[in-house]
Amino acid sequence: MPEERPYLTGRTYLFRLNKGEDLLEQLQEFCHNNQVKCATLNAIGAVSAATFSFFDQKKKKYVKVHKEEELEILNLTGNVSLMDDKPMVHAHITLAGENGAAIGGHMMQGCTVYACEVFMQELVGEPKIRKSDKAAGLLLWINPQLKPR
Amino acid sequence: MPEERPYLTGRTYLFRLNKGEDLLEQLQEFCHNNQVKCATLNAIGAVSAATFSFFDQKKKKYVKVHKEEELEILNLTGNVSLMDDKPMVHAHITLAGENGAAIGGHMMQGCTVYACEVFMQELVGEPKIRKSDKAAGLLLWINPQLKPR
Amino acid sequence: MPEERPYLTGRTYLFRLNKGEDLLEQLQEFCHNNQVKCATLNAIGAVSAATFSFFDQKKKKYVKVHKEEELEILNLTGNVSLMDDKPMVHAHITLAGENGAAIGGHMMQGCTVYACEVFMQELVGEPKIRKSDKAAGLLLWINPQLKPR
Repeated sequence: MPEERPYLTGRTYLFRLNKGEDLLEQLQEFCHNNQVKCATLNAIGAVSAATFSFFDQKKKKYVKVHKEEELEILNLTGNVSLMDDKPMVHAHITLAGENGAAIGGHMMQGCTVYACEVFMQELVGEPKIRKSDKAAGLLLWINPQLKPR
Repeated sequence: MPEERPYLTGRTYLFRLNKGEDLLEQLQEFCHNNQVKCATLNAIGAVSAATFSFFDQKKKKYVKVHKEEELEILNLTGNVSLMDDKPMVHAHITLAGENGAAIGGHMMQGCTVYACEVFMQELVGEPKIRKSDKAAGLLLWINPQLKPR
Repeated sequence: MPEERPYLTGRTYLFRLNKGEDLLEQLQEFCHNNQVKCATLNAIGAVSAATFSFFDQKKKKYVKVHKEEELEILNLTGNVSLMDDKPMVHAHITLAGENGAAIGGHMMQGCTVYACEVFMQELVGEPKIRKSDKAAGLLLWINPQLKPR
């Protein structure tokens, strides 16, 4: 691993999201409105519909799962970094239905908030920059360089 | 979303819970004893019994699940806010049994600690205040106002 | 519970792990290289193989599960403390396959990173010290004392 420079902790937020609106879009909008460029975040709550995906590492593409049902958000974990100079939220979600069985994946647009409580800790320093990584087929952080030049 | 004022980070705790005692009650007691009014928290560990629930959004009531068995705590995510002027812990729990299959929901009293390691970050500022929200059927934060008056 | 002294927040890290290498070993190496002795951490990502375990509380031994398949890391939650004067990472992992079904347990060596984004917050103060606890059969923190002497 390359040498990592520590961040300073910036603004610390605790807030709820609006019912009926898209979870990912609200997080994106929050970052845009407050100019949060680098952060860690978590959330709990419930959704009335969910969309997430699994990354097929061989085919290098996301396989989408959509659930049109009420689900608890057991955990949402993610971060904020910059892509094309704009804040981008990357988060994975763990959900559960009435019997408690847990499901989840890479959170996509298409999660409708019933209730959601978010903790976000801004990190101050050089924001991570996300770019398409052809070898992995994913959008990965390019800084600092993973391999010495 | 309303404009959110950032918090300052207050006291930072890392601690374990007592074996054989109730998980939620110990977290509540910790907040009460240390007067933690606003915080984010996470935990891992194991329980010898678990109680959690799923919120039925149509019937507006919690459906309880109780497991009288040994389970790993894959993740506990939650927060602390004020209800009736007292610290209240709201947390969702993800658990797994011997085969690894994950289950979970809204953590309730009735989770018996086998071992548990908790991280809690106090937030200093205007504590969130939780009140019954009739439209949602849940106890939600009322500040700041979600809709302009 | 004993009285807990708060920590100060130290260095704050956000970084990615190397593809193809062991997840737990990379976290351990990061802590060793940066002399992180006490911390909280979380991560999301994907693995190409996973090994985790369930603690059998009666037999007091870990039951290992190995999955030789591609899995999303829905959440990794853990901490860093000292064992035999060296940083030790303790983390639980939640994973999901193509259909979204979640599994997980106590993370062990044998999780091969495909991609992984880690947040680590160092805690400054008296690092927690982990030692074998015969009654529980686990490696638990011994400070502060849980029972008054």
